[in-house]
Amino acid sequence: MRTLCHDLSSTAPGSPVETTVRVTGTATANAQAPGGIEVTQAYVEPLTDDAATPPAELWRPSLDVSLPTLLDHAPVLWRHPAQKARWELAAASLRGFRATLDALGFTEVATPKIVATATESGSSVFTVDWFGRPAHLAQSPQFAKQQLVGVFERVYEVGPVFRAEPHDTVRHLAEYRSLDVELGFIEDHRDVLRVLREALAGMVGAAAEAEQALALTGARLPVVPEEIPVVHFADALALVGAPADEPDLAPEHERALGAWALAEHGSDFVAVEGYPMAKRPFYTHPQPGDERWSNSFDLLFRGLELVTGGQRLHRPGDYERAIRARGEDPSAYESYLRAFRHGMPPHGGFAIGLERWVARLVEAANVREVTLFPRDLHRLAP
Amino acid sequence: MRTLCHDLSSTAPGSPVETTVRVTGTATANAQAPGGIEVTQAYVEPLTDDAATPPAELWRPSLDVSLPTLLDHAPVLWRHPAQKARWELAAASLRGFRATLDALGFTEVATPKIVATATESGSSVFTVDWFGRPAHLAQSPQFAKQQLVGVFERVYEVGPVFRAEPHDTVRHLAEYRSLDVELGFIEDHRDVLRVLREALAGMVGAAAEAEQALALTGARLPVVPEEIPVVHFADALALVGAPADEPDLAPEHERALGAWALAEHGSDFVAVEGYPMAKRPFYTHPQPGDERWSNSFDLLFRGLELVTGGQRLHRPGDYERAIRARGEDPSAYESYLRAFRHGMPPHGGFAIGLERWVARLVEAANVREVTLFPRDLHRLAP
Repeated sequence: MRTLCHDLSSTAPGSPVETTVRVTGTATANAQAPGGIEVTQAYVEPLTDDAATPPAELWRPSLDVSLPTLLDHAPVLWRHPAQKARWELAAASLRGFRATLDALGFTEVATPKIVATATESGSSVFTVDWFGRPAHLAQSPQFAKQQLVGVFERVYEVGPVFRAEPHDTVRHLAEYRSLDVELGFIEDHRDVLRVLREALAGMVGAAAEAEQALALTGARLPVVPEEIPVVHFADALALVGAPADEPDLAPEHERALGAWALAEHGSDFVAVEGYPMAKRPFYTHPQPGDERWSNSFDLLFRGLELVTGGQRLHRPGDYERAIRARGEDPSAYESYLRAFRHGMPPHGGFAIGLERWVARLVEAANVREVTLFPRDLHRLAP
Repeated sequence: MRTLCHDLSSTAPGSPVETTVRVTGTATANAQAPGGIEVTQAYVEPLTDDAATPPAELWRPSLDVSLPTLLDHAPVLWRHPAQKARWELAAASLRGFRATLDALGFTEVATPKIVATATESGSSVFTVDWFGRPAHLAQSPQFAKQQLVGVFERVYEVGPVFRAEPHDTVRHLAEYRSLDVELGFIEDHRDVLRVLREALAGMVGAAAEAEQALALTGARLPVVPEEIPVVHFADALALVGAPADEPDLAPEHERALGAWALAEHGSDFVAVEGYPMAKRPFYTHPQPGDERWSNSFDLLFRGLELVTGGQRLHRPGDYERAIRARGEDPSAYESYLRAFRHGMPPHGGFAIGLERWVARLVEAANVREVTLFPRDLHRLAP
């Protein structure tokens, strides 16, 4: 039996905890023993030098350390079973996400993380020295995944995205894992929301199978309703008592909407559709009949933004107008726009932030607690 | 039925090819029709503006364009069924890789792509402006995946890696997808090779299910032998008639070894073990009893290097000596070395280059032909 032993003090009095050892002995089934197997007449042989004392007591039921200690000593402190179990829920979620999309006819793609053009906004982009020229780290696979809808019709990608966010908040990272989806031949953003619903149900289903990790983390899995409740941005403002001309939802508004969805619909999720066009990227499809609003949504999970999605423009002329309306020159997007000139179906998609998802599941106060080796303004190691 | 139509000239005389349309009509099963369904009394309605003429004739059986044309027009030319099928083999391979490792008790991990320390060599690393400080793009997840063996024991990751290779060759990219594996409690590199064998068998098995893609690409799937033949580096030099003091295998030597493995063992794969320590990174485990050689291997697939793998050092003292022997200061690796001081099992791993794998399957002359949007010295778009 292979296993990492975190406390061998009883069997190997000569070796400190965390020292890796080989145990040779007689294995007997024993329901009382941890793991159901008892090893008797054990011969314990160290496989490495005596281990240094861990920065925290890994055998205690919970890892009671400050965030800076957790992050500074991440390679060792992730060994704590309850901490490790948090990542096991992340890994299970990834498995459920992919299995669901594979079954729905999506193709996994791999798009470049080094790009010539910023995809979201010029302000939060990292610059790379690319053989002496400046290039950027991709803030999202947005442009590439849209172009690939013209090839595969339905695509997904799990990969790193990079945001040079100078904000030191509990829910922003400079590098995070984005679960990106894009699909063609939709009527509007509601079709996108239906695929998102399936993906979330798949992620919850896979996490539900990780029973030990659920028990160790105390995670509370949500029920994903057959149809996620939807409220229009204008109605959402009214619902939370905000002025009708607010351009965005504040965190307290999101919390209030989360509480409303739970009370009214028994749902941990609520989608807010119709976000003001002025707050959305240029590729966003406006709401037909009222171009102040958009065919896009944010999905709130327990009162926090987890997913952004929506319908995109698909006609080349609409792109050129939208880019000019933002005071930019369409020629800067030439390589992106070409795919639309060669025919693209109505399409849309979404992106789920993996770390935010897991943080909500296990009710971690900070996304850094559930990220293996987080990167932010202050941290490049371990 | 959802479908991307690449030639509607017969049904929609008004719309040029690649224009996306909605077809409303009566669907009837018809074994003679493409896809087995005939649509009669069709009403065709364009969903976008008339498409511009594609840069190549997508309806022809093969896409007969030069490499620069293929890459400049990638978003449109990937729509060609035979080209698209190449990526479908990549996607199937990823699926088979993950399913195999999941079944073997591996945990998927996600490690940072922005790092403080170069992992492989200082010469081929990209520099990022990290909030005003210099940082690097990870050349591999090597350090992180080793540290995570101390947590999960067996880990894998599929992600981008970055090499600032100034060489313009048919098999190097500046960004590529690496299929990384690392596992603990091994005897030596042969245990690593056995897991690699399983991963390859899983990839081939999944690709075998993509029957249409195989037919369209003309890919020739290898048989993965139960045990991959292994030859020691010293014997490999003798076998190909190279001088005994050669420090590396030249491409013609790799081809000769591939031919030998096929003739002698009926195998498309051969592992060359024992590479000279002088040519391997500092974390490589030497061959017990003769430290000129290493417990590492290269796997050749049809005479080309596809995978590098091996056993790593696991004792902290060995790391310090190895780093000093290369004229470096162990304190530069402090964050990495800490995990070893806290106990690590004997471990090893490997990395498969996805693009090289697919290029060999479909016998593409250049890895760029099978990469969705390749990045190299000259190319940052599309």
